[in-house]
Amino acid sequence: MMETSSKEPSQPHQILIVNEDACREVIGRHEAFQAVEAVFASMARGGAYNFPVVREAIGHADALYGFKSGFDREALVLGVKSGGYWPGNAARGLTNHQSTVVLFDPDTGRLKALVGGNYLTAVRTAASSAVSIAHLARKDAKVLGMVGAGYQSTFQLKAALEQRAFEKVVAWNAHPEHLTRLAAICEEKGIPFEGVSRQELGAQSDVIITITSAFEPLLDADWIKPGTHLACMGTDTKGKQEVDHKLLAQATVFTDEIAQSISIGEAQHAVAAQILSEDQITPIGEVINGTNPGRQSEADITLFDGTGVGLQDLAVASEAARLAETGGLAQRVTL
Amino acid sequence: MMETSSKEPSQPHQILIVNEDACREVIGRHEAFQAVEAVFASMARGGAYNFPVVREAIGHADALYGFKSGFDREALVLGVKSGGYWPGNAARGLTNHQSTVVLFDPDTGRLKALVGGNYLTAVRTAASSAVSIAHLARKDAKVLGMVGAGYQSTFQLKAALEQRAFEKVVAWNAHPEHLTRLAAICEEKGIPFEGVSRQELGAQSDVIITITSAFEPLLDADWIKPGTHLACMGTDTKGKQEVDHKLLAQATVFTDEIAQSISIGEAQHAVAAQILSEDQITPIGEVINGTNPGRQSEADITLFDGTGVGLQDLAVASEAARLAETGGLAQRVTL
Repeated sequence: MMETSSKEPSQPHQILIVNEDACREVIGRHEAFQAVEAVFASMARGGAYNFPVVREAIGHADALYGFKSGFDREALVLGVKSGGYWPGNAARGLTNHQSTVVLFDPDTGRLKALVGGNYLTAVRTAASSAVSIAHLARKDAKVLGMVGAGYQSTFQLKAALEQRAFEKVVAWNAHPEHLTRLAAICEEKGIPFEGVSRQELGAQSDVIITITSAFEPLLDADWIKPGTHLACMGTDTKGKQEVDHKLLAQATVFTDEIAQSISIGEAQHAVAAQILSEDQITPIGEVINGTNPGRQSEADITLFDGTGVGLQDLAVASEAARLAETGGLAQRVTL
Repeated sequence: MMETSSKEPSQPHQILIVNEDACREVIGRHEAFQAVEAVFASMARGGAYNFPVVREAIGHADALYGFKSGFDREALVLGVKSGGYWPGNAARGLTNHQSTVVLFDPDTGRLKALVGGNYLTAVRTAASSAVSIAHLARKDAKVLGMVGAGYQSTFQLKAALEQRAFEKVVAWNAHPEHLTRLAAICEEKGIPFEGVSRQELGAQSDVIITITSAFEPLLDADWIKPGTHLACMGTDTKGKQEVDHKLLAQATVFTDEIAQSISIGEAQHAVAAQILSEDQITPIGEVINGTNPGRQSEADITLFDGTGVGLQDLAVASEAARLAETGGLAQRVTL
């Protein structure tokens, strides 16, 4: 872009650096839940929107790299989460997913804060399914089913357990040895835990979270009980799939963002098969705002297609920056 | 995106902060020229590419905000320039254009450096037209014509004067009172300066730089002498235009990136009028690499459509980070 102003460049200004440790210090599950719930509500009111996502296979280190960005006009939060997936990182002792959030002052465009995004991505994703459980699951839900036991699943489990008075957790994972990390959390909370088959998981669970990298359905539609709430959190790319696409025709379907849900989310397959249409999917913000009733009956199956939007990242990062600044945990540097 | 690794989050790591002052200290016209020439060459070899541009009118403060990003596989430079145009800034004593560059380690995806982008945007844009003059203008060019006298024009003029043994500068600006800033540079360099009409500018100039925000042609095709080289640097948006579109059918046309040239660059109008086709536009990197001869004759009119690509920003920012680190001018913080 070209500069036509007659002014000389601006004076240096202070920016905040909020590192991973500071994020862990100031953003707990409660703060993440509040931030994500608020931005979903703002999206549904038209007060916040996501910009087009950039995602590129860069042809180096098998990495997928890109940006999610957006603007919340109501909260005046503007910025971008950049980063991606580096499959070789684990062998180096690093997290495969690497994220950083950059926040800008919407009044001037100047950089405001640089916020570590690895921990925040985990808590905002967990907050998303937790918000769906809070607003869509039956109040009397007793059994929580976890499909997937990767790193992210621990965040999901902890956030979900706070939404209902769960009395038992059942879980399945492609590599059963990883179930120990979910079992350990349940033991700590004093909740019975059981590793089960996928069919058994469907038969027992009142709430199910799927959080895998699957490219084929792991749950048959027939296995799901009436009244179940599902939060499908793993599908964020064309081709990925966690549940039988027929389930989306039987369930009442909600999502964070319809555009992503039908293109890269769990709904992509049902939409492609023409058994679900875009106008049958409800933004969860409408339920939060009370403009949509959400669950229709005790027997209704509700399904939340959590695709992950940039505004979630910006919302939690903005709150992290605010709290870290207040708490003296942010570094200040001159840019 | 979802985390499936079994690893715990990575250890904190050091990042570099390279502020506007440090950028001014380490990146002169020579460094910017070298970096921009090298990345244009890499682009033409297929070693570097730009990702899709995100550009949004955010509905606040009349701001245009977005990202330019890309990856140079040869130089291993990966990152994004984020920022935009805030028209109300000048009244606050700030530059209307605000930019920041974020660089990532292409081996791990971890943030490497945060680099102030305001000064760098000015020098990389000037380096772009200077590279075009170096490779396309006649060796015996004597008169340089400047169309536009905004903030950016001073950078353009200084970089251009170093490419040929210019004996005179002529200039035109919509607001003639701003010509004094170009006159001052010429006085300092001991080169005669004259404010002229646009037609007279065409008649006298061997090299012309257009650097305006015009939405209609400022130079008629008929006014341009045989043998002239033009660097059209102002058009970076649909609808903008600096020269008669017929000139692009008469000239040999070069650009930084063809996709931008035909959609948002100076070539958009000639392409829309079907007097210029995409395959008649040459990436300047091919001339740098010697795979295209560039200027065809002494009488040939050459025109460089400088649209501005993210890779230019990343190239100069990467060099700024390297030099600032070596020179002890970068701040280090833990993320």
